[in-house]
Amino acid sequence: MDTSRFKAIAFDADDTLWENETLFRTAEDRFCALMRPFLPEEDCQKALFSVEMKNLPLYGYGIKPFGLSLIEAAISLSQGRASNALIQDILAIVKDMLSAENPLLPNVFEVLTHLSQNYRLVVATKGDLLDQERKLERSGLAQFFHHIEVMSDKKPDNYRKLVRHLDLKPDEFLMVGNSVNSDVLPVLEIGAHSIHIPFHTTWAHEVGEEPLAHPNYKKLDSMRDLMVLFGGDPIL
Amino acid sequence: MDTSRFKAIAFDADDTLWENETLFRTAEDRFCALMRPFLPEEDCQKALFSVEMKNLPLYGYGIKPFGLSLIEAAISLSQGRASNALIQDILAIVKDMLSAENPLLPNVFEVLTHLSQNYRLVVATKGDLLDQERKLERSGLAQFFHHIEVMSDKKPDNYRKLVRHLDLKPDEFLMVGNSVNSDVLPVLEIGAHSIHIPFHTTWAHEVGEEPLAHPNYKKLDSMRDLMVLFGGDPIL
Repeated sequence: MDTSRFKAIAFDADDTLWENETLFRTAEDRFCALMRPFLPEEDCQKALFSVEMKNLPLYGYGIKPFGLSLIEAAISLSQGRASNALIQDILAIVKDMLSAENPLLPNVFEVLTHLSQNYRLVVATKGDLLDQERKLERSGLAQFFHHIEVMSDKKPDNYRKLVRHLDLKPDEFLMVGNSVNSDVLPVLEIGAHSIHIPFHTTWAHEVGEEPLAHPNYKKLDSMRDLMVLFGGDPIL
Repeated sequence: MDTSRFKAIAFDADDTLWENETLFRTAEDRFCALMRPFLPEEDCQKALFSVEMKNLPLYGYGIKPFGLSLIEAAISLSQGRASNALIQDILAIVKDMLSAENPLLPNVFEVLTHLSQNYRLVVATKGDLLDQERKLERSGLAQFFHHIEVMSDKKPDNYRKLVRHLDLKPDEFLMVGNSVNSDVLPVLEIGAHSIHIPFHTTWAHEVGEEPLAHPNYKKLDSMRDLMVLFGGDPIL
């Protein structure tokens, strides 16, 4: 990958810069523990996922849609026997998620320090604007980024708009992220470049097949490898 | 107001371009009707508003935060006696709101047709990105706008960022909207210009005192008056 061609590098945020999916996994576990009187844990996880998928087109991504789906699932999975205390526990899960810290992933700070000297960096993320701005603010990483682009979805058209907005040709744009479906495939489709750094946990909705042979694609193990690729000090 | 100085005009969306507050009023009425077994309508409206205000910093603006606050209010106002059917009715209110049409306000289409010939137009709105994009898409107005700027809040700093992003001086920027607190005061504070076109209903949170004597401020009765101010055909 010839890194000199890039005029901007966009980073996905959740599970690329900081941990996030773990928040959702913990919340699902708390929810399914609350639902144990009604159904086994594994059935609960599956049923919840199908409620989320049904609501996705109308609700979009983020914690608040997730919270509304949890409440809907609690009522349907309990066959209308969810107590008010249980619903309040779910609202507490939602508020805990919104107030939670998102720990930075290893070496993110160092890599951004290095890259920001030579590239325009942006954050390109799905989800809720307020939540994502808050996470960026708390992360201490805002200083490295030209701006944050919160996208309603990560389809090819959304990336086309972003690249146009940055006044670039697709070939000058690199996306770095942890999701094949959101950060890789649509980016390659518009003629831009993508680096995939997997996170240990991936939401079922985001799992996709890697385009290993594509010339504009590269898979790396960690931020440390990204540092090396861009000529930074490998001793982190 | 010397209209030739403006290089971009930003429009608030909800209750400036299309009706929106009426959706929330209808939803509140439906909610308080559901709550009638527990408390009188007027007390319900007040109590709901205080739950919303308490949650605003954490939840932000939009329909989904409103929905979560409705459920929280249902449980507390019923003292833990809200049935699952009632909670399901609230989820139905939320989904109805998300799927609702937002009727265009009178003459909006004609005014934007006229202004877009001479000015760069943007939408500057609070709320949920997915919801606002969907409303713009459905409205048939997207063609007139350079882009949509969804802001997590409308404080002076948010406007400073927007004006910088448009590569303008504050004095070259005009904001048009229905809320004194969101579309007028913070805009005047950064040295830009503001036109206030009141909507018949205003959310209590948005009511503010008009800076009638400010040289950069103008209050108009309707989009028709905006058309006249910008030299368009007054016969709409």
